[in-house]
This record gives sequence, structure tokens and C-alpha cells, in this order.
Amino acid sequence: MDIEKIRKETPGLTHGIHLMACGSALAPQPVVDAVMAYLDLETRIGGYEAHAHETAMLDATYNSVARLIGAKPHEIAIMENATAAWCQAFYALPLGAGDRIITCQAEYAANYVAYLHRQKKDGIEIDIVPNDESGALDLVALEKLICEKTALITITWVPTNGGLVNPAAAVGEIAKKHGVPYLLDACQAVGQMPVDVEVLNCDFLSATGRKFLRGPRGTGFLYIREKWLESLEPAVLDHFSAPLVDSSRYAVRDDARRFETWENSYALRAGLKVACDYAMDIGLEAIQQRAWWLADSLRTKLALLPGCSIMDLGAEKCAIISFTIDGLEPQHAVESLRNHGIAIGMTRPGSSLLDAERRNLPVMLRISPHYYNNEADLDACIEALKDLM
Amino acid sequence: MDIEKIRKETPGLTHGIHLMACGSALAPQPVVDAVMAYLDLETRIGGYEAHAHETAMLDATYNSVARLIGAKPHEIAIMENATAAWCQAFYALPLGAGDRIITCQAEYAANYVAYLHRQKKDGIEIDIVPNDESGALDLVALEKLICEKTALITITWVPTNGGLVNPAAAVGEIAKKHGVPYLLDACQAVGQMPVDVEVLNCDFLSATGRKFLRGPRGTGFLYIREKWLESLEPAVLDHFSAPLVDSSRYAVRDDARRFETWENSYALRAGLKVACDYAMDIGLEAIQQRAWWLADSLRTKLALLPGCSIMDLGAEKCAIISFTIDGLEPQHAVESLRNHGIAIGMTRPGSSLLDAERRNLPVMLRISPHYYNNEADLDACIEALKDLM
Repeated sequence: MDIEKIRKETPGLTHGIHLMACGSALAPQPVVDAVMAYLDLETRIGGYEAHAHETAMLDATYNSVARLIGAKPHEIAIMENATAAWCQAFYALPLGAGDRIITCQAEYAANYVAYLHRQKKDGIEIDIVPNDESGALDLVALEKLICEKTALITITWVPTNGGLVNPAAAVGEIAKKHGVPYLLDACQAVGQMPVDVEVLNCDFLSATGRKFLRGPRGTGFLYIREKWLESLEPAVLDHFSAPLVDSSRYAVRDDARRFETWENSYALRAGLKVACDYAMDIGLEAIQQRAWWLADSLRTKLALLPGCSIMDLGAEKCAIISFTIDGLEPQHAVESLRNHGIAIGMTRPGSSLLDAERRNLPVMLRISPHYYNNEADLDACIEALKDLM
Repeated sequence: MDIEKIRKETPGLTHGIHLMACGSALAPQPVVDAVMAYLDLETRIGGYEAHAHETAMLDATYNSVARLIGAKPHEIAIMENATAAWCQAFYALPLGAGDRIITCQAEYAANYVAYLHRQKKDGIEIDIVPNDESGALDLVALEKLICEKTALITITWVPTNGGLVNPAAAVGEIAKKHGVPYLLDACQAVGQMPVDVEVLNCDFLSATGRKFLRGPRGTGFLYIREKWLESLEPAVLDHFSAPLVDSSRYAVRDDARRFETWENSYALRAGLKVACDYAMDIGLEAIQQRAWWLADSLRTKLALLPGCSIMDLGAEKCAIISFTIDGLEPQHAVESLRNHGIAIGMTRPGSSLLDAERRNLPVMLRISPHYYNNEADLDACIEALKDLM
């Protein structure tokens, strides 16, 4: 990895130290250029005219996203965010009274709200897999939970509130073995590590552009395994997802784009394409290795601070670090570091409520280095935290 | 209206003649600047950090949208497009077996697909109001159609396929008189003419940013009348629309933003805000007057071309013109004019299928001047069409 080139191509690094890839990462110049160039084209010739001019590139966005996760282009729907993508899959599934879904302790709150919503609306039941000793989803417990009424396994791979990496591929094997559909929230995983839907054995996977993938805010995508494209009708339809045949009939599209609607920001999509290509050019293995190494290094440095508790779960930890420092109010720390040009963040109990309730978690500090960071960035962050203690 | 200033502020006009405001209008420089500046800020300091920096401006976007349509800020949800906005209202409405909805001949196909979808899924019945002699929705017939089972009046104000302006405010009076909820698709109206939800008496109104409002692609909004905010639960929930109270309960937000999800493109929202402010600064009355005057002028010029048939319905016509010219293939015309730097468009039967079936409409040419156009633009378009005949 040519880290000097990568840092030079990241304009945000010349303005400060950014350690919030898990929130919204710094975009590389080629992503910014793609968005700006598309907007400029729209400004010059008009929106529809720009679209006609760039059809081939926009179509190729599906190829880039598909290649990033080992899928086929027609299995990809491009959405405006990860939650919209996830919801399109979850709310489309025909779950009814008595159907059971299985989720995990680390589940993202957005998804959990939707479970409660369908519990109330459709009468589904929610089973929560306990954690193993490391704090990850317990695979043995998962398999025991599966019963005849289990209609869906739906988990978060990497939670928003720390370094845990759930065993998503092993879950996929169990789901496949028992013939249970498997929806994987890969929002914090895509762009941080290799993602391959064949290895994962997932039926549906949702992700965002803005986090570790370094794409624009307002982009996301949904993967739907080919075999579902015949049977799964979206919860919401328009004339893009289902063109009219005559005044009494529509025909739902036969690709994953049945989950899209007609209108989009094509400028942002142009950025998403470049973000996928950029990550693949560097290599997801290399990205994971460096980001996780930096995170490990930062955990080691943080652990030396008096009163600091690292709160990450799991045997193997990713590039999201959650911690507390005795007597240090997180909001105050974030604002102080911001004033020194260092971006870190917080995670609130409400974002991962099951985990927060079980562990009685407070508001925590959250730091997430990416491969474009270096040891000097980490040291500056540590020094700034020390100044607050 | 200072037309010279306005034209100077529209970069697209220096590159060609754009007559497709009904598709995606040319953005003014201030809108482009707002989007670019926000993207630039994100690039420099990061997405979450830019949001924290621009919170006041982003909050004020709700005020600008609200002011544009005479609503209160908490009655506005900002969405990624008009269809998503419309669907959020329509699919949230608790319509069941035997409930009847009333729509119009000019209904937009996206909406009509959703009616058929809920007919199939929920057993609703669809009543279609016939047109009056002018081709607009017949108000007498509408009132006759209303019965005890009528649960919604849902119409398109200005269709995508021509100059018709349905009597949206008179429909609202009838809806109010009979206590029937009223959903208005104002996608082609907002930015073209004054829109006031109090005058319209609508309960829900959806619109896009990219058309006559001259905002960015990938923006839209939904208006929800205050009285519905207590009772109407979105069809899809996340932890933004409904934060968790504890692991067994969520609390749906008490404002219209319950129809949004957590993540958005704030850059595009910044552009939407400026687009609203820009239109209001010029004045919607003045905008309508000039755009409609240009459209009338163009209709007169087109009518003089041999074999040209103007296909617009209604007594009073807006700034969308649909027409055919004997022997001229629309796709060929669009491409030929594009090669001369003139942007016009087409409208296909599938976009307004009820109307197209009833009138046996072919693919038609579609031209839509906006207030930033002038007579010279129209003359150049007419000359280019003549060259093809």
C-alpha cells in the first residue's frame, strides 16, 4: 500500500486528524472529483441530459458495487442509505403472526426498531442470541434457537458501538444448513474488510457508502441473492420498480432494482462507483490489515491512560474503538479535540440498545482509524486526550 | 423580475438552450454553490464534522421548504425524491378491504402502480374521476363519486405529460367538506407556481427539488398536515423516525420527520434550501406568469408548424407542452436538437397510462420553458424543429 500517495489523495488530512471512519470517513480526491464533475455536467447541460450522457458510467456503478462484494450486478439495488436498503429487504419479507426472527445482542437500533414495529404490526416474535465468552454472537446458542417457526436470521456484522466482529460467515453456514433466510447488516464492514456474499452465504446484505468505503453521504446499497428476485415483492412500488403493463396490471422488474424508485442523485452514485473502485484498487485485505493494526495500536496506547476502559467485545477486533476515561465527559472530549483539529466521536446507548442495556453502557467515546491514518495521528489524539485529564 | 441577472446566474444557459424544466431544470449558481460548498466542507473536515458545523443551516432548510408552501416547519419531511415522499404518505395510510380511493385520469404512473399494489395487497378499490369538457378533473363528477367507503382522494395536480392544471384547490374544498383525506402530488407544480397548503386544503403534499424548483436531483419533500402527526405511523421505521425507549418500546417522533430515516445527503439538502429561497426571492407569482407566458407563446409558434398537434388538456395551461408532428419520430427529434445544443424531451404513454389509454396517446415530444428562458430560446427551438420537417 502506497500510504504516502493515499494520504496525498485525501484532502481532509491536510486540514486535521480524522479518526471517525465509522461515522463518515474522509473521501479520497477521486471520489470528490467524480461527484463534482457530475454536478458540474448537470449544471452545464441539465439533469436529464447529463444522465443520458453518462448512462454507461452509471450502469457500471452496479458492476463496481457487485464486484466489491462478490455479487452479480443484477443482484444490486443502489439506495440513498444503508437503512433504506436494509428496510427494503426486511419489510418486503412476508413475515406473519408467530413467525420468529433471530437477531443478536449487538444489533443496530434502527433494525431493532423495525423488529418491534413488525412485532406490533404483524405479530412476529424476536429471539435474541446470547453472546459467547468473547462477547460475539454465540454460534452454538444460535443453532439451538432455530426452530420450525424461525423465518429469518438478521444480524449486524460489526456493531456501531465498538470493535466486535460477529462471525457472519459461520452464521451464514448455519442459516444455509437450516434453510433460514439470512439478512446481514454490513454497514460498518463494507470498505473496512473483504466482503464476499458467497463466503457469507447471506440472502440479503445492506451497506452504506459514507463509512469505511469513503463514498458520499446519501448513498448505500442492497444485495439480494438471485434466487429471491423471482419471489420477493418490495413493500413499496412505483413505475420504476414495477412498470405498468396496462391500467389493471404492473410487472415487477426482474432484477434487484425492483427495490429502487425512479429518481436518484446520479452525482452521488458516480462518487459511490469511484469509492468502490478505489477500495478494490488498494485491496480490501490490505485495507483491513492496516486499519486493524492502527486500531490495535491505538487500543494499546489508550489502555496506558489512567482510568481508561476499552469497551470493545470479541476475540478479534476491528477498527472501531469504544472506551471511557474516568471523569472525562465524552461530549466535552469530542469538542475539545475538535478545537485541536482532531475528529473523534461518541456512541450513545440508544444506538445499540440491547448491548447497552445488558452491559449497562454509558455514553462512550468512539474512535475509528482508517488505513489512511498513521501512528502520528494516533499519538496526536492520545496527547490531546492526556491534556484533558 | 430581473431576467438578465437571472440568466447570468444560470450557468447552463451559456452552454445551450434548455427547455426541460419539467424533467430537471437548470440550477442557478447559488444552488450549485451551496451543494459544492457543503461537499467541500465534508471533504475538508469529514461528514459528521460538517454536519455539526452546519446544523443551523440544515435545520433552516425545513423553514425554507415550509415557507415555500405555506406550511409549518414541523409539518415537513425532507426526502430523497418525490416518489419516496409520496409513498411514505400513501403506504402509511391505514386503507383496508373495501376502502375506496379516488384518483384522476391524469394520475402519475408511479402513484397508480401503488394503487394497484394496495388493491392486490390490501383489497382497496380505485375510483377514477372522469374529465370535464376541458380535460381537467370534473369536480361535479368527483363529488358524486364520494361515498361512505371513500377513504382518500389522491390526485396529480400537474401531470407529467402536458399542460393540464387540475383544480387542486377546488378538490381540496370538496375533500374538506366530506371529511375525506386528500393527498396531492405537486411534483410538477412546486417551483412553477404559488403553492399554499392552506389554500389547497390538502392533508399531504409531495414534491421534488429537481424540476421547476431548480434544486438538486435526489431531493424531495413531504408535507403532512399537523393533525395527522399524532395518528399516522410510517410504514417503515428506524431509530431516527422512532427512537427506542427501552428494549421493548419505541416512541415515534412527533413531527413530520418521522417519515425520514437517519442518513441523508446534507449537501443536497443545502442545495434544496437555497433553491426554495431563490424561488421565493423572485416570487412564485412572477415565476408562474413568465413561465406560462413563454409556454403560451411556444404553443402558438408550434401550432403554426405543419402537422403539429398540441396535446395539452385543460382550459388554463401551464409551462409543460406536449405535442406531435406528423412524420417526426420523437426520439430522433430529441437527439437532433441535442446535437444543436437544444434540450427538449419526450413523454411516453406509460408515465400517465390512464390518460394515454383513454386518448390513445403515442410517444409525444415534451417541452417545458421556465422563467429563465426567453423568446430567442423558443425561436431557436422552432427553427431546429423546422429543419427536421
